[in-house]
Amino acid sequence: MISKRRKRIGVLTGGGDCPGLNAVIRAIVKTAINIYDYEVMGFLDGYMGLVYNRFTKLSLEDVSGLLDKGGTILGTTDSFDPFNMMVDVNGEKQKKDMSRHIVDNLNMHNIEGLIVIGGINTISTAYKFTQLGIKIIAIPKNIDNDIPGTDSSFGFYSALNTATKALDKLHSTAESHHRVMILEVMGRRAGWVALQAGIAGGADIILIPEIPYDINSVIRKILDRKKSGKNFSIICVSEGCRPKNDAIEDAGEEKGALNTLSNSISAKIAGEIEAITDLETRVTILGYLQRGGDPSVYDRILTTRLGVEAVNMAAQGNYNKMAGITNNQLSPVDLSEVAYKCKNVPVEGELVKIARNMGVGFGD
Amino acid sequence: MISKRRKRIGVLTGGGDCPGLNAVIRAIVKTAINIYDYEVMGFLDGYMGLVYNRFTKLSLEDVSGLLDKGGTILGTTDSFDPFNMMVDVNGEKQKKDMSRHIVDNLNMHNIEGLIVIGGINTISTAYKFTQLGIKIIAIPKNIDNDIPGTDSSFGFYSALNTATKALDKLHSTAESHHRVMILEVMGRRAGWVALQAGIAGGADIILIPEIPYDINSVIRKILDRKKSGKNFSIICVSEGCRPKNDAIEDAGEEKGALNTLSNSISAKIAGEIEAITDLETRVTILGYLQRGGDPSVYDRILTTRLGVEAVNMAAQGNYNKMAGITNNQLSPVDLSEVAYKCKNVPVEGELVKIARNMGVGFGD
Amino acid sequence: MISKRRKRIGVLTGGGDCPGLNAVIRAIVKTAINIYDYEVMGFLDGYMGLVYNRFTKLSLEDVSGLLDKGGTILGTTDSFDPFNMMVDVNGEKQKKDMSRHIVDNLNMHNIEGLIVIGGINTISTAYKFTQLGIKIIAIPKNIDNDIPGTDSSFGFYSALNTATKALDKLHSTAESHHRVMILEVMGRRAGWVALQAGIAGGADIILIPEIPYDINSVIRKILDRKKSGKNFSIICVSEGCRPKNDAIEDAGEEKGALNTLSNSISAKIAGEIEAITDLETRVTILGYLQRGGDPSVYDRILTTRLGVEAVNMAAQGNYNKMAGITNNQLSPVDLSEVAYKCKNVPVEGELVKIARNMGVGFGD
Amino acid sequence: MISKRRKRIGVLTGGGDCPGLNAVIRAIVKTAINIYDYEVMGFLDGYMGLVYNRFTKLSLEDVSGLLDKGGTILGTTDSFDPFNMMVDVNGEKQKKDMSRHIVDNLNMHNIEGLIVIGGINTISTAYKFTQLGIKIIAIPKNIDNDIPGTDSSFGFYSALNTATKALDKLHSTAESHHRVMILEVMGRRAGWVALQAGIAGGADIILIPEIPYDINSVIRKILDRKKSGKNFSIICVSEGCRPKNDAIEDAGEEKGALNTLSNSISAKIAGEIEAITDLETRVTILGYLQRGGDPSVYDRILTTRLGVEAVNMAAQGNYNKMAGITNNQLSPVDLSEVAYKCKNVPVEGELVKIARNMGVGFGD
Repeated sequence: MISKRRKRIGVLTGGGDCPGLNAVIRAIVKTAINIYDYEVMGFLDGYMGLVYNRFTKLSLEDVSGLLDKGGTILGTTDSFDPFNMMVDVNGEKQKKDMSRHIVDNLNMHNIEGLIVIGGINTISTAYKFTQLGIKIIAIPKNIDNDIPGTDSSFGFYSALNTATKALDKLHSTAESHHRVMILEVMGRRAGWVALQAGIAGGADIILIPEIPYDINSVIRKILDRKKSGKNFSIICVSEGCRPKNDAIEDAGEEKGALNTLSNSISAKIAGEIEAITDLETRVTILGYLQRGGDPSVYDRILTTRLGVEAVNMAAQGNYNKMAGITNNQLSPVDLSEVAYKCKNVPVEGELVKIARNMGVGFGD
Repeated sequence: MISKRRKRIGVLTGGGDCPGLNAVIRAIVKTAINIYDYEVMGFLDGYMGLVYNRFTKLSLEDVSGLLDKGGTILGTTDSFDPFNMMVDVNGEKQKKDMSRHIVDNLNMHNIEGLIVIGGINTISTAYKFTQLGIKIIAIPKNIDNDIPGTDSSFGFYSALNTATKALDKLHSTAESHHRVMILEVMGRRAGWVALQAGIAGGADIILIPEIPYDINSVIRKILDRKKSGKNFSIICVSEGCRPKNDAIEDAGEEKGALNTLSNSISAKIAGEIEAITDLETRVTILGYLQRGGDPSVYDRILTTRLGVEAVNMAAQGNYNKMAGITNNQLSPVDLSEVAYKCKNVPVEGELVKIARNMGVGFGD
Repeated sequence: MISKRRKRIGVLTGGGDCPGLNAVIRAIVKTAINIYDYEVMGFLDGYMGLVYNRFTKLSLEDVSGLLDKGGTILGTTDSFDPFNMMVDVNGEKQKKDMSRHIVDNLNMHNIEGLIVIGGINTISTAYKFTQLGIKIIAIPKNIDNDIPGTDSSFGFYSALNTATKALDKLHSTAESHHRVMILEVMGRRAGWVALQAGIAGGADIILIPEIPYDINSVIRKILDRKKSGKNFSIICVSEGCRPKNDAIEDAGEEKGALNTLSNSISAKIAGEIEAITDLETRVTILGYLQRGGDPSVYDRILTTRLGVEAVNMAAQGNYNKMAGITNNQLSPVDLSEVAYKCKNVPVEGELVKIARNMGVGFGD
Repeated sequence: MISKRRKRIGVLTGGGDCPGLNAVIRAIVKTAINIYDYEVMGFLDGYMGLVYNRFTKLSLEDVSGLLDKGGTILGTTDSFDPFNMMVDVNGEKQKKDMSRHIVDNLNMHNIEGLIVIGGINTISTAYKFTQLGIKIIAIPKNIDNDIPGTDSSFGFYSALNTATKALDKLHSTAESHHRVMILEVMGRRAGWVALQAGIAGGADIILIPEIPYDINSVIRKILDRKKSGKNFSIICVSEGCRPKNDAIEDAGEEKGALNTLSNSISAKIAGEIEAITDLETRVTILGYLQRGGDPSVYDRILTTRLGVEAVNMAAQGNYNKMAGITNNQLSPVDLSEVAYKCKNVPVEGELVKIARNMGVGFGD
């Protein structure tokens, strides 16, 4: 039996998984119970758990040992929109707005506030629920780092570790075989992963959505290196990058998935390099390896900070905001400033400049 | 000026790069110089360096610090056959036998014996050179572990580490999203990488060339797991695996390369799973990450053993053999027993059996 | 209620923990249940669980996900001898033989055979129980690799990874500061960890119990390196090594523990080097880091092989043996050949020789 | 011959080594040559190279491949003070002020500005040189993170990775053996490493210099955990921590070295815990492992930012400052605000608070 006296908050994880989800759940539950004596209800598989009323009450025991475990004990759902859910109606697939179910379920459970851990899509959906009267605090999660209102979303630095180590590994093959090695990393519409992994992994060329590339410029850079005695090159490609003059097209969340392997942007680039130069060019698509595994040290601390802050915000009634970190300080930001937006790499920013200083080519 | 008095041996690295090449070069040079006072000439980019007479004299200084460095300081060439080299003859590409150049160059340099570090193709070519009177000692190198006459070729255990850690990472995504996650690993015609990484990484299904699979059996296994409450599955796929009743087709050395991403076997399998079940299925092709990076501890010791042994064999005049390890003992084997052959996974062997004991499905 | 019809086996883990304990428990339980339909009872904290009758029935669910988890879910006890247990008798500490309790408990539970996972001490105790009529199968576990009758005990290769990576790390400090850096590793009376980590980590000097060292020889090696331009040295010291002409004294299991930090052998060696040379010398004692963490790929496969084999042996009634691997083949060995013995590094063996070939000094 | 026309800057690395030194040298040289066409002279072994006029001219080739290499190609010296250098005068050791030699050497080489990479001591010495008219830019380096005027010095996050992974490893032993495991980390007078590694590694108790501990409080926390069913505890101890009411004593740079192993603070704490409780308590002193190895991704980017910024500051004549990062923005700070100071953990700051929220005890 669930007590009626203690204040109750809900929590769910939405969108693609990434390292640190469990760590943030742990921080929320520990703070909520130890500091505020709240009850915490975890809804399963993102908003889907709220539609179908599938949940678990979270205890200190449930979150013990979760700090360094990848994945999410609550499960998650990608590309699920409760305002436009695909449902079977008399054997036919139809879109249906299930938001009312969710509002009703939250009320039924006497959830005072809901902590939503997710990326832009999950937070944008959360913003819509605030307009239905639901009190929400969001925590920015994704490996793409494209969420506005925070220095970095958790998961990003863990993915960066994976991408940088992959570049380290490709170096030896590139040098031994005098090849062009391309690594395609995630990032959707933003180039943060490619840019920072490229800097940290010593890439020679970095291609990001924010700086459309000219294949001739890319090839010129490779040939310049060859002339100066470096007969190999490493290219770090963001899945969302595109050539100049190309029709702009959003990279979907599932760019790394099955059906797009054949027409990946890096395969296209490799083909063009091999067609014009005589250099063997090989592609590696890092894919899901970027989402898995244990959170990095940075992300373990970041998730703990964000989880604590979210519960503090709930305790203060500071709702309808995202728990963000700006200039390394906690700084809640209105959901309206986050929803439906995208934080891109500033093309004249310091990081692009230092990469250029290091001799990196951006294909522009 | 090169002294005429000291005995001189040559060394080259051929075929795809893998972790440990530099470590074996280090062991050869240290033993040759410290123990036997030989000269060591390193030929560049595999047999190509012998065709074009490109080489470097190797000193103790050259190999200092190489033990844990990936790649090969000598460079290597994939799919290069000096007996059938593509050359420009009057602007036209022709195949030409350049073996005479190589024999002449070795004689000109007074190379008594040539240590050839490579996989099956490189060793098979070496075997042909023994028939032209060249004295050769081979060292088995590849990540596929398909070289007969040795327990394991170096590079294999390093690749296994990379593949196993990739499986570890995919687990969290699989569980969080209730997905089927497929990891495609290298191995060419042999399933060693998939089998052992699959066991070490806790794969639920392992598909290898030696056990043709039935897709219905694969799907049955996935659905059985779902029924028992495990709504995710991890499949470790060897690049060379094939369905039952399929025309047999060799997996080329470059299966992971650019032009085969779209028609990889794992993409085909994923499509079939998604078509029949309602489970999201995602593919990751590990590709070149398996070849790069520092050698594992096991490979650092193995390369040192093999490098020392190869020079000892040269000192004993024990030529035209491969330095192998059988049942953990050094045991040279005639090149004739290695060339053109392939060591496959025994389908009734202990490793397959223990995998079955662990509940792994092989799709048969 | 526990069924009376199914055959029942017991399992316990004893001695110091090491990576792979959980993996072997998993392999035992999966094989016992899936293949033979046995019941498996896990006794807690080694033999202590058998004294106090503390146990848990192990299900497939209990061992799910254990493959890559460090530690042991059954708990373990170091330096616990049920034949000489310290007990309070009327407020006084006395030694008491509790073996009868254990025999009685095993009989009461109808345990047909007991699988004992442990090192030399644990296995020696097991051997004594066989003389009381208990049917036992032992699985060799320790990081020291000093158990006879098997190529390697599990845990050893994981510890080797940790020790080798530590040597990799000390290299940069040694070079930057022109220092002598000493790493003390575990191994008790045997030098396996120091020898193989030393080879894999490129140590300049390796000191092991099997080869008593002369400090003057150690210092000569350091000064020779300095003369040849290498103004730093890395020494890998086995905790059990000792100077020539020293009274032989066994290194205890707990050499790395609290009370011996100050009088560690490596501190003594460092002091002697600094007293005679002007080289800054620094000591790192790796200690418990060697026992913790996830099992390496090699150990994950080895533990799976050994766990499966132990249950197969139980099924065949092949008791009072240890499940060992000799020359990479499964080969059970009588407990009498293991108990109270120690497998040392052969001082004229291949590994010592290749280390010498690489220029390593052993202080002899 | 060295050209007289190009502007020339000097660079040296001082103090204890840490990951990222080579990466920052690389960033300096690449920016100085590629962007400004400066000459760069590297002085060897810190200020000692300036005393003895030992240097090397640095080219792009020299810094190629340095990004991920630990250590410093320039060498470094710990505890070396050119204003109080120990020299032999007629066979007697005397302190002598060698600063004039350094000023003369810098002038002789026409060094316009000197980039000094080091910790507090190295930077304080640099500050004294500015008072002799030398133009200096400092780059904050150390693993302790105790340098004021910057969010983090490079090396800190790399050390944090090592310390956190060590805590991860100790968890399995602590749980399996029901022990108290103590990890002693570096940090000198500041608790940054212990605090953040403790949070990231899930320590139960964190002891830092800024919060003097009461051993009874430490023991109470351990026993409270035992009462609640957690019969193990992990303590992360900063080398500089001290009990309440203790005479304050600075932890020296070399706390982890040979002569202090026996009287380390963690050994003292372990003894007190074992004396009062019956819990086995084990100490691991992480020592030099924290300084070695490859820089983390975070440090690779940070070093690149700081190296580029330092050269930009030199180009702008913005001397006698340290290149710092405040709130994630580049922000040069006067050397006078850094020299002889120490940045401590704020005891009421966010990090301590979130640790308390997670249930961590500080022994206060």
